[in-house]
Amino acid sequence: MSSSESAVSPVVQSARRAREAAAQLAPLPRAAKDAALLAIADALSARAAEIIEANADDVERARAAGTSEAIVDRLTLTPERVLAIASDVRDVVALPDPVGEVVRGSTLPNGIDLRQVRVPLGVVGIIYEARPNVTVDAAALCLKSGNAVLLRGSSSAYHSNTALVKVVRDAIAGAGLPADAVQLVPGESREAARELMRARGLVDVLIPRGGASLIRTVVTESTVPVIETGTGNCHVYVDAQADLDMAVDILINSKAQRPSVCNAAETLLVHQDIAEAFVPRALAALAKAGVTVHGDAAVRAAAERAGSTATVVAATDEDWAAEYLSYDIAAGVVPSLDAAVEHIRRWSSGHTEAIVTTAQAAARRFTQLVDSTTVAVNASTRFTDGSQFGFGAEIGISTQKLHARGPMGLPELTSTKYIVTGDGHVR
Amino acid sequence: MSSSESAVSPVVQSARRAREAAAQLAPLPRAAKDAALLAIADALSARAAEIIEANADDVERARAAGTSEAIVDRLTLTPERVLAIASDVRDVVALPDPVGEVVRGSTLPNGIDLRQVRVPLGVVGIIYEARPNVTVDAAALCLKSGNAVLLRGSSSAYHSNTALVKVVRDAIAGAGLPADAVQLVPGESREAARELMRARGLVDVLIPRGGASLIRTVVTESTVPVIETGTGNCHVYVDAQADLDMAVDILINSKAQRPSVCNAAETLLVHQDIAEAFVPRALAALAKAGVTVHGDAAVRAAAERAGSTATVVAATDEDWAAEYLSYDIAAGVVPSLDAAVEHIRRWSSGHTEAIVTTAQAAARRFTQLVDSTTVAVNASTRFTDGSQFGFGAEIGISTQKLHARGPMGLPELTSTKYIVTGDGHVR
Repeated sequence: MSSSESAVSPVVQSARRAREAAAQLAPLPRAAKDAALLAIADALSARAAEIIEANADDVERARAAGTSEAIVDRLTLTPERVLAIASDVRDVVALPDPVGEVVRGSTLPNGIDLRQVRVPLGVVGIIYEARPNVTVDAAALCLKSGNAVLLRGSSSAYHSNTALVKVVRDAIAGAGLPADAVQLVPGESREAARELMRARGLVDVLIPRGGASLIRTVVTESTVPVIETGTGNCHVYVDAQADLDMAVDILINSKAQRPSVCNAAETLLVHQDIAEAFVPRALAALAKAGVTVHGDAAVRAAAERAGSTATVVAATDEDWAAEYLSYDIAAGVVPSLDAAVEHIRRWSSGHTEAIVTTAQAAARRFTQLVDSTTVAVNASTRFTDGSQFGFGAEIGISTQKLHARGPMGLPELTSTKYIVTGDGHVR
Repeated sequence: MSSSESAVSPVVQSARRAREAAAQLAPLPRAAKDAALLAIADALSARAAEIIEANADDVERARAAGTSEAIVDRLTLTPERVLAIASDVRDVVALPDPVGEVVRGSTLPNGIDLRQVRVPLGVVGIIYEARPNVTVDAAALCLKSGNAVLLRGSSSAYHSNTALVKVVRDAIAGAGLPADAVQLVPGESREAARELMRARGLVDVLIPRGGASLIRTVVTESTVPVIETGTGNCHVYVDAQADLDMAVDILINSKAQRPSVCNAAETLLVHQDIAEAFVPRALAALAKAGVTVHGDAAVRAAAERAGSTATVVAATDEDWAAEYLSYDIAAGVVPSLDAAVEHIRRWSSGHTEAIVTTAQAAARRFTQLVDSTTVAVNASTRFTDGSQFGFGAEIGISTQKLHARGPMGLPELTSTKYIVTGDGHVR
């Protein structure tokens, strides 16, 4: 094999080293992994200056390229932010180790003991954009779950990521674990990313984190199994029977508490029986929160009849499909709960949909029929989140149905194996 | 949308109808699904003659094409075989419904009730070869788990599959369920299969069942998430301390009880400390079972020293990699348990590996280090099987780590969704 080694690309070489590291990580007990995580947290604090210096290069480059200040802010590391990253790593230490958990177990009729046990996935690839904190978060979660990780960040954060990974690798090695458990994919080219997506057999799963176009590229080009994350066209449906104060609170919280995230609401649907009473109140509250409403004819008519002063833009199909991630919301009136479900089935990205209702039968039917990662009854869409769900940390929110669906914590970074124990059993 | 409908291919139209059917199946209670399954079983018995007549066309075509008698036999349906297929459907009726099972549940600190509940995957695509019984098995398992299924069988079984699916659809419709829950992918062309693999967003998962080249094609070309199944290069490792009678029994059962299946053993590894005693016995038993041994130098030397009359062919790297599926086995001597694990890590397909040992520490280390769907301790590799594991039925054996690993029963045909219930909770 060594004779052909020189022809092997740096990405494949990295993946092979990750595979070796993963084999060493898999049987490690929690104490060894936690010690390495604490070493990482300490090293981040101790070496914050060198990380911030590297980050300054990225920030300067981004400014020179005319990047928007919002993006530059997301990219920027300060002493406080580095300490916050270190603190997140300490939080991962406190989480239980998923590896070794017995998921199912029974004694078969022939006396064989069958156990299904959680094991690491092996090598996890993460392709992500901008924020350097993802680099350390992902490394910590993968390490805790016994996985090696190959990180492919955006080139705009290349210096920051390089510095962070260097600190992490030094800390891991100092704790006696293989440094190659955490690697930055070598090279900034698209070809390097493509090789990562084609490293089936070496990489066990790829998780893209970023915008829709990044995710589409990974899904289309990857032969490595992918977990799709994060697009959220979330709906709030206000049923015929509903507490209107509650409905306003949930609507405003879902839309405006943090509009830039995937669990923010993008569409309001209102049952026609309650439209006359609710739409004007909703429009007033949305206007007060600074939200522009893109309404269908019925919403606009209800606003007009109520003499609402809020402006309502006419909604098109593009509005029903939009993941605004901004202070905008589409709004429509539906003739029934089933029509709301039908609308959601057609337009939703399958992330989170909420119903506000006082009717038990409506709550039951909505939760049964809506096919999204999360269905909220009388609660904000903003709860779909790993830390809100008590998972302690989150590697992303899966919007696909295979392997994991919804917020992914440590158990979602594992696979299982069966242990069959007999005393000479044959068929 | 209807204006462009005529430009939509028949495969995509099928997938859309499947999607509609899946939405109707998802909320159905078990009783409705079981009634449809019983109707299928009854219809298969009642209409066996028309199924066998259609099958005769396929068999004739296969014979005319010079297909081997073994393959023709797998393709052939007889009255008994049709009744056996009907009986398998009745077995699925007896299995519990996975849909609705609460996988996790807790009350969050803020009082929200969180439930993670099993739901159907939606639309399952199955691409498979030859055997017509898979058509009905897959339909029954998908129906029971609330999924619509798109079946793409091999063209050699086209008439049989068409007849079987017609009977199944009639029975489903008679039981009041949507017939489009079970469809044969229209068209026999490769292009039709390719369209199925590209129907991301319409098809939730593709499961290829068949030879290595079929599986490779699906994995490489599909943008729909795939569950890889079934290649098995399984190992039996006999440790330094082992009951040699047990080792012979497990070896022969693993290799020769049914050599054509994926959980049959393909390689024997023997610890050097026990090679002198075990290799001659193993060779004699393998010879008696009609198995040809492809041995390394140490195995051949041990055979010679013992004056074994069994012929041993020299093993090459191809033998370590081979999934023979025949009366052949590769055999080698290893210096240690860790060397056995190293060999397995390099050559195994990750299906099933067995250790025969009397040493607790060896059993523990082997099960920890071997990274395969199933690790057997003092038991045959042949136990890796849905019905042996008590799952009642099996849609295939996943050899990948994502979503499902090992034998897949009904729960593996489901996803989950989170239900968040509050009384006006906001963040």
